[in-house]
Amino acid sequence: MRSLYHHPLCPFSRKVRLVLAEKKLEFDEHVERPWECRPEFAALNPAAEVPVLVEEGGTALADSTAICEYLDEAFREPPLLPAEPMARAEVRRLVGWFDAKFHHEVTRGLLGEKVIKRLSQSRAEPDSRAIRAAFSAIHEHLDYIGWLTERHSFLAGSSLSMADIAAAAQLSCIDYIGDVPWDRHHGAKDWYARVKSRPSFRALLADHLPGVPPPRHYADLDF
Amino acid sequence: MRSLYHHPLCPFSRKVRLVLAEKKLEFDEHVERPWECRPEFAALNPAAEVPVLVEEGGTALADSTAICEYLDEAFREPPLLPAEPMARAEVRRLVGWFDAKFHHEVTRGLLGEKVIKRLSQSRAEPDSRAIRAAFSAIHEHLDYIGWLTERHSFLAGSSLSMADIAAAAQLSCIDYIGDVPWDRHHGAKDWYARVKSRPSFRALLADHLPGVPPPRHYADLDF
Ligand SMILES: N[C@@H](CCC(=O)N[C@@H](CS)C(=O)NCC(=O)O)C(=O)O
Ligand SMILES: N[C@@H](CCC(=O)N[C@@H](CS)C(=O)NCC(=O)O)C(=O)O
Repeated sequence: MRSLYHHPLCPFSRKVRLVLAEKKLEFDEHVERPWECRPEFAALNPAAEVPVLVEEGGTALADSTAICEYLDEAFREPPLLPAEPMARAEVRRLVGWFDAKFHHEVTRGLLGEKVIKRLSQSRAEPDSRAIRAAFSAIHEHLDYIGWLTERHSFLAGSSLSMADIAAAAQLSCIDYIGDVPWDRHHGAKDWYARVKSRPSFRALLADHLPGVPPPRHYADLDF
Repeated sequence: MRSLYHHPLCPFSRKVRLVLAEKKLEFDEHVERPWECRPEFAALNPAAEVPVLVEEGGTALADSTAICEYLDEAFREPPLLPAEPMARAEVRRLVGWFDAKFHHEVTRGLLGEKVIKRLSQSRAEPDSRAIRAAFSAIHEHLDYIGWLTERHSFLAGSSLSMADIAAAAQLSCIDYIGDVPWDRHHGAKDWYARVKSRPSFRALLADHLPGVPPPRHYADLDF
């Protein structure tokens, strides 16, 4: 059986979980706390980061983008990248936007400072300047999602793609800690409601981390 | 004619320049200082980051990984990703390693603190703790390159791939400021000599930024 090493509050792990679920691929789950640096885990991925997918046959794949591209190549239905090279480039541009820019400007400042530092028993205090900067940066990103979805139901067209998955993976982590200002961003909220109601989202909405309960609206499809 | 907006000391721009050169694709160059946030440039890429490739026909592509994947799909020779999905995943894992981990742990701390802050007239002083951390982290990465190339000439096999290009793009930026401790890492040095001597590297070795001259060994194939 295929296995996934992941952490419920890791957006890159959520990206892979969503792709596996969209493709209806079964897998065993192992929740990994990467900050513990278990030697057995570092043997699977020298970067010692989640996610890691161990395929049937035993090959360990690391890096969420490498894993998602692999899954889209090896398991074609439903395709999560379009067929035409320039259209694929646009989806991948948006994946890069959410994996790098959104993660750097928003996710690290909110989830990283407020929750992961505590969970990993880091000695550093949460950095209140980084938290404020992230609360301020999230608006521009939600506006961008609203702008992109004025023309289509999904970020890069009329069907779900890797871009929606990358964006929803980041946002769902921040929603887990109640920090997405949905009420000020109706376009983004409508898009998220569409993504959140997909069967592939169910496992994410059932996540419940001991000591870090999600707010009530987190699993509510009508938030 | 295809045009590339890039900056000589941006490793992600160098990745795209190397791919264009390996595929023997001609392009016009525009050196862009992204920190100036020119509105015309932000109109091409809402992230306001280099590199941006404007294809014949006028479509602007952004995000170096999206651009490199596009170029490998649209222009097949020479292929920079292998044919088999798991082998492709291994190349992409290494691309992620150098684009994210190496950039975060090394490039930002050396190039970002020592040079880009000055060029962009940032008011912040170079952070000496970040510089020291980067000087210490680079050894582990050079050892990793040495270890990977014990079995093959290139990082992911016997021919050049996107993994070598991503790694050489980062390292060549740091070499431009003379900060790679080659003498302590013979395996990595041998690999870099092989990559550096390719015709695709010539344009990078001719880079010369006003006010930031490279050290003498930078362009030397026998460094
Ligand atoms: N580029 C990697 C990044 C993965 C990543 O940053 N994972 C984090 C958790 S979200 C991690 O494992 N960090 C190591 C740690 O916390 O010690 C990917 O896309 O898979
Ligand atoms: N994920 C992007 C990252 C590109 C990036 O970070 N570019 C930097 C220069 S190396 C930039 O333009 N930064 C904006 C600035 O300096 O204002 C890519 O791979 O293309």
